[in-house]
Amino acid sequence: MGAKTVLGILGLGTVGTGVVDLLRDNPQFEIRRIAVRDIAKPREIDLSAFEITEDPFQLADDPEIDIIVEVAGGVDPAFEVIKRALTSGKNVVTANKELIAKHGPEIFDLANKHGVTVFFEAAVGGGIPLISTLQRGLQANRISRVAGIVNGTTNYILTRMEQDRKSFDEALREAQAAGFAETDPSDDIEGRDVVYKIAILSSLAFQSPVEVSKIFRQGITQIIDLDIILAAEFGYRIKMIGLAQPGVGDTLDVRAHPMLIPIHHPLASVEGVNNAIFISGSAVGEIMLSGPGAGKYPTASAVVGDIINIASALKLPDFARYFQPPISSQVKPVYPIDETRNAYYIRLETHDTPGVIGKLGLAFGQHGVSLHSVAQKGVTSSGTATIVLLTHTVREKQVQGALREISALPTVKQIGVLLRVLNH
Amino acid sequence: MGAKTVLGILGLGTVGTGVVDLLRDNPQFEIRRIAVRDIAKPREIDLSAFEITEDPFQLADDPEIDIIVEVAGGVDPAFEVIKRALTSGKNVVTANKELIAKHGPEIFDLANKHGVTVFFEAAVGGGIPLISTLQRGLQANRISRVAGIVNGTTNYILTRMEQDRKSFDEALREAQAAGFAETDPSDDIEGRDVVYKIAILSSLAFQSPVEVSKIFRQGITQIIDLDIILAAEFGYRIKMIGLAQPGVGDTLDVRAHPMLIPIHHPLASVEGVNNAIFISGSAVGEIMLSGPGAGKYPTASAVVGDIINIASALKLPDFARYFQPPISSQVKPVYPIDETRNAYYIRLETHDTPGVIGKLGLAFGQHGVSLHSVAQKGVTSSGTATIVLLTHTVREKQVQGALREISALPTVKQIGVLLRVLNH
Repeated sequence: MGAKTVLGILGLGTVGTGVVDLLRDNPQFEIRRIAVRDIAKPREIDLSAFEITEDPFQLADDPEIDIIVEVAGGVDPAFEVIKRALTSGKNVVTANKELIAKHGPEIFDLANKHGVTVFFEAAVGGGIPLISTLQRGLQANRISRVAGIVNGTTNYILTRMEQDRKSFDEALREAQAAGFAETDPSDDIEGRDVVYKIAILSSLAFQSPVEVSKIFRQGITQIIDLDIILAAEFGYRIKMIGLAQPGVGDTLDVRAHPMLIPIHHPLASVEGVNNAIFISGSAVGEIMLSGPGAGKYPTASAVVGDIINIASALKLPDFARYFQPPISSQVKPVYPIDETRNAYYIRLETHDTPGVIGKLGLAFGQHGVSLHSVAQKGVTSSGTATIVLLTHTVREKQVQGALREISALPTVKQIGVLLRVLNH
Repeated sequence: MGAKTVLGILGLGTVGTGVVDLLRDNPQFEIRRIAVRDIAKPREIDLSAFEITEDPFQLADDPEIDIIVEVAGGVDPAFEVIKRALTSGKNVVTANKELIAKHGPEIFDLANKHGVTVFFEAAVGGGIPLISTLQRGLQANRISRVAGIVNGTTNYILTRMEQDRKSFDEALREAQAAGFAETDPSDDIEGRDVVYKIAILSSLAFQSPVEVSKIFRQGITQIIDLDIILAAEFGYRIKMIGLAQPGVGDTLDVRAHPMLIPIHHPLASVEGVNNAIFISGSAVGEIMLSGPGAGKYPTASAVVGDIINIASALKLPDFARYFQPPISSQVKPVYPIDETRNAYYIRLETHDTPGVIGKLGLAFGQHGVSLHSVAQKGVTSSGTATIVLLTHTVREKQVQGALREISALPTVKQIGVLLRVLNH
């Protein structure tokens, strides 16, 4: 086999521990150093065989380390450590979705300059080989859409709400108890995690990055059990979706928001903490990859897969060029959400007064929004009626215009939620 | 971009025509020669720009051709042409499942000797990137099972039988009319196509080939609509499955036969001509890849993807070693079907005489086969009663022993079908 490949690992959380577990008995690799934030913290694995440091730059500066494995997450200090590692000619494996989403082009450019590579299969979809499929598996295709369930926490919550008729709060608490949601779940339930992941998938599918801060984002916190029940009556399931497709002109329509998915669409059957991405290609048609999108060993297996792939390529002279992600450094504008065209599910809380549906119909009509269905659901003791509407496909700004007018009507208490429908 | 990559194409059927379509306007490639069986045959594409030959060895001997693209199918003459091409230092892309299943190790060995590669993504699962996922995407895993729906024709027939209550013959005729089944459909409905494909997937998952002629094979021709209805009542769908998993000792349990799939298993929802493979890995857990498994452009997209991947690797010195499929040339024995352990679905035709179920129960009991459910379904005017049994998990030879005894009973007319159940 020749000499061992020498690794430095940055971060020893769940994924880092999984990576050490998977590699510690592998004779092909030597873990030389591990950088952690707090050396004193008690850990569930025996680290006596490793050199532990609190200074991650020691990894980047160690001339014997071949590959830096970054599983710490967050931009700081990972970004600086990775830049220094690449500059000193080391290859990098990272699971860091935020870093790749925000600074991918700069990182790939630096790697290119120094003849090394950055692999990031674990950044999206845990152990499902999404990145390699988009990068190398569909070369003959012009991709027309990527739609994915890429956040296990929100999919677990929505699945529990649907299957066990739980409220959002109950389902969230259950997810936290089961270890599927963090104590502070906001990155997941507010959609930031999905923003990072769809930004990465989009950059691979369309070979151009977008500005991450411009990606439209809506979380799942406004969704109530009634929405899930009514969506089912209309023939849909509600899923948190990352969507990327070409926009008008040279833009990319990239977004992260819950959507109504037609019940027979393959994404509708993805349950619990599973992830899936659905890819439409010009030649291949529609393919879906699914599996556990997070968790210690699924994610660690993607990291270790990258390490093994780099190690076997290290024997090739000049291999790095082959593995360069084909992403231009030219950032494309995000197609504004106002300009996108969708069908909409809208839930309104109104006073139970006669003629309210007529007034709503009039307001939508004046903005050119035609309605597919309208349903009034029960009236509470306080006299609140819930009205749910499903529109035909229309430009978002027309719906927003109608809703501004509607929210000013005296009979309307509030707009409960606005959700978009995935067209097939 | 530098010089064009020069291609020679062997075969101009559906897939070959798709490959020409996808590549003819690509400035990176030049199609130098195309070998066909019959030059005079009228074709739907304009071939005036290409040099056409009936001698496929001209491709292998042309010193300017970089990559031979073999989309002719069958062992003869593809095997000899590919061997000569590899020997003269050309890389090969093939969609030929039979050839790779039967002669993969010899072909890979020859490629290795001459510093070139053989890519075969299109051999299984059309455009779904199954081969690359097994070869490079799950490196950190010990795979414990591959179970796949890898034949679109049989999946289409079984789907039509279930959804539209068609008979096997009606569904087959419908598949032929829709272009999803050949005029002679025997390779598909008798399971030979699945044998080749699961042999290839198994060799990648377990890094060893098996002897293809030893793989147990059962087609779908014995399945009647009643089986599909009763399977559904028991909580299953019937699917034609290629299965590969480690056997006892140093054997591999590789087979191609219809199976009862639990209704909530992801494979159960794969409909029509779609394909899917379900992979269980030690670290990643269970992942599934699905999509159109056949057809002109899905398959051509896999072929062209291979061509593009080889072309970009051609710039690397010594790249072939990196892409060598990690398959040992040491053939492993197939674990005998008699020794495998399964639960079984058995349909028997009997005379409607009292006590017949008791006699069946006795025979099964004497062979150590315990029954999970027994159902008697109707009695025809000729006095035939259909009895369906579901067993617990048991070694196959015990079931076969019981059935030998049962088929000798005077009250039993015939054993209608024996199907195996996928355990989850």
